[in-house]
Amino acid sequence: MRQSQLFTRTVKELPKDETSYNAQTLIRAGFIDKVAAGVYSYLPLGKRVLDKICRVIREEMDVIGGQEILMTSLIPKEYLEATDRWENFDVLFRLKGGDNKEYALGATHEEIVTPLAKKFILSYKDLPFSVYQIQTKFRNEKRAKAGLMRGREFLMKDMYSFHTDQADLDAYYDRAVGAYNKIFQRLGLGEITYFTYAAGGTFSKYSHEFQTISDAGEDLIYVCNHCHIAINKEIIAEQSACPQCGNKELAEKKAIEVGNIFKLGTKFSGSFNVVYKDDEGHDNQAVMGCYGIGPSRVMGTIVETFHDDKGLIWPENIAPYKIHLLSLGENEAAASVYADLIAAGFEVLFDDREISAGEKFADADLIGCPYRVLVSKKTLVAASVEIKRRSDDTSSLVAIKDLMAYWK
Amino acid sequence: MRQSQLFTRTVKELPKDETSYNAQTLIRAGFIDKVAAGVYSYLPLGKRVLDKICRVIREEMDVIGGQEILMTSLIPKEYLEATDRWENFDVLFRLKGGDNKEYALGATHEEIVTPLAKKFILSYKDLPFSVYQIQTKFRNEKRAKAGLMRGREFLMKDMYSFHTDQADLDAYYDRAVGAYNKIFQRLGLGEITYFTYAAGGTFSKYSHEFQTISDAGEDLIYVCNHCHIAINKEIIAEQSACPQCGNKELAEKKAIEVGNIFKLGTKFSGSFNVVYKDDEGHDNQAVMGCYGIGPSRVMGTIVETFHDDKGLIWPENIAPYKIHLLSLGENEAAASVYADLIAAGFEVLFDDREISAGEKFADADLIGCPYRVLVSKKTLVAASVEIKRRSDDTSSLVAIKDLMAYWK
Repeated sequence: MRQSQLFTRTVKELPKDETSYNAQTLIRAGFIDKVAAGVYSYLPLGKRVLDKICRVIREEMDVIGGQEILMTSLIPKEYLEATDRWENFDVLFRLKGGDNKEYALGATHEEIVTPLAKKFILSYKDLPFSVYQIQTKFRNEKRAKAGLMRGREFLMKDMYSFHTDQADLDAYYDRAVGAYNKIFQRLGLGEITYFTYAAGGTFSKYSHEFQTISDAGEDLIYVCNHCHIAINKEIIAEQSACPQCGNKELAEKKAIEVGNIFKLGTKFSGSFNVVYKDDEGHDNQAVMGCYGIGPSRVMGTIVETFHDDKGLIWPENIAPYKIHLLSLGENEAAASVYADLIAAGFEVLFDDREISAGEKFADADLIGCPYRVLVSKKTLVAASVEIKRRSDDTSSLVAIKDLMAYWK
Repeated sequence: MRQSQLFTRTVKELPKDETSYNAQTLIRAGFIDKVAAGVYSYLPLGKRVLDKICRVIREEMDVIGGQEILMTSLIPKEYLEATDRWENFDVLFRLKGGDNKEYALGATHEEIVTPLAKKFILSYKDLPFSVYQIQTKFRNEKRAKAGLMRGREFLMKDMYSFHTDQADLDAYYDRAVGAYNKIFQRLGLGEITYFTYAAGGTFSKYSHEFQTISDAGEDLIYVCNHCHIAINKEIIAEQSACPQCGNKELAEKKAIEVGNIFKLGTKFSGSFNVVYKDDEGHDNQAVMGCYGIGPSRVMGTIVETFHDDKGLIWPENIAPYKIHLLSLGENEAAASVYADLIAAGFEVLFDDREISAGEKFADADLIGCPYRVLVSKKTLVAASVEIKRRSDDTSSLVAIKDLMAYWK
């Protein structure tokens, strides 16, 4: 992409009420735009990052057999009354249609997926299966102040699994944990993200969160460094030692909840009477699990994690572009390098604008692509470009003829 | 995909109030599920078709320089008051947040994109550009009865372009027409889709629709067969001859509006005061165009267009799977064919279920993948499979060793 064509640019003026680092910086760098508190548009650079995060999540859900669907955002009132959530779910946006029909906007989709699954579950042969979607969710938060962390409108991957019994759910749940660990590793958050024990419900002692250590976090967790697991503050009174090794020396950390998985048991299959015939012809209730992860919140978490005082530092596989090519008054030579890189399949943002070198350097640091490739009179004297990793302080000259080999 | 793993199946019971052919058939074939009138979930097969339609549209928007973004569904009241549409846009869903802030759900996005563009438009050097999104839209239709044609919640690609003047808009508008024609050709609708003159507004004599001839259509158009263009009924009184060749012998046809493009002029840039400095330093208002196409409505249109009394007949490039592989009691041999096809990069739905041959044939016809490949005792005697195109009545035996070459 030629930066002269990109309709956005880095901006200096920020919305006055924006206090979170992640939203401030993403707005400054031209990745997002604020429409209202907790309500952001994704601009071309931001959309690319979001798409890449979604792709990683989608691939790992597909690995564990998730079938992708797209449910509705409009949820009729009667579905939420069946589970007593129409009145009791405090973050619902409620609205009325022209036919006087009442809806809520989807904040979570158990009430849609369970009746849907019911239509296709007759016998034990129809189980197990899992379905997921990546969809805009709506939550009528009283205060939305943590940027992409706690939005009123945000992207969510929610998966739901259906099983004959608890043992089958347990086995799938473990596979889902594995898929989640893989996702956070691929997103560069693996080392600082902890499988965390949290409050359960009627049907399970615990739920589990994936918590990423961050000073920007709204949660407090207690980390066991032997097992790389943690306990959420909400249950630390009753569960004060590591549930895996018994370690009582846990370290208190601030963290961001980036994922949440839950054994729902028969809570929702009970409400909607999802029964299957077992191999002896008896009726049994299906057992469910649910598995959430918010791509937009993950994006905010990555921003909170990977940055310096100059701007963003994207992990390579979710950067908007791998290479930020800067021309300092040498657009013709730089365009030739650009064409070669594009032809070789690299993703390149080409700063071909007529602005000062200082502005180009500052923008490259703020936008945070992993590699900055510089073409200037000085580098061309040596038939070279200068390459600097965003995360390094030093740069090196690389001959243009050796450029493609540099990333091999 | 092994069909035994697919969580959906074809169904016989239909929602009682579903009268449209497209929704009835997509529900029967397991592509969509009805949540409320005009509100449908997309199941795995339907999601695949929808994704493929979106990919075609996205590729053609990218060709004409569209930059993909994702705007918000929640539109604060004040944005819509700025254009007098809060009160006057009758299909808006309106709702209130916990902070007492009022929003509409996005039915169209001029009120979001225009203030967004304004932030990045300073001088003529920042123009032209165009941005688009593919997003769920909401319209509070009084009656939603045509299945995917007129939904309360539906997918939309909306593009908006910004220009220095009318001539630049006119030139881009023509490129957009070309991109739209390409899209409908690629979707198999090219021949029966007409560039149609429709009512304009304050800033343009006409808007233009893309209308696909169909008995299921809600519109009436008047077709000039010399020019492959049409005139919408709403303007036929004032424009009774072909605007291109003057032909007065126009044929009345029922049609579905699959796309709509509009020269907005300064209607919205005026409301939000989007001005740029020209090369002499004078302030001018930016000129806008907008370009819509509904992927879910296109999906419904394709269903209305390509079917027979047995079910769906998908055009090859948007079929959920290219090949429907049926095993008649020969799962081992069929699994080997399946593995070979997958390894060669084909998209295959493999019916490995333990049901009757009759049910498999009926399902294959209903689901409508372009090629049915049959593995049975009889075909295996000849070391072959039987291939039948969904659109043909005759089948042919193809040796398994020659199978890959069949599609070359």
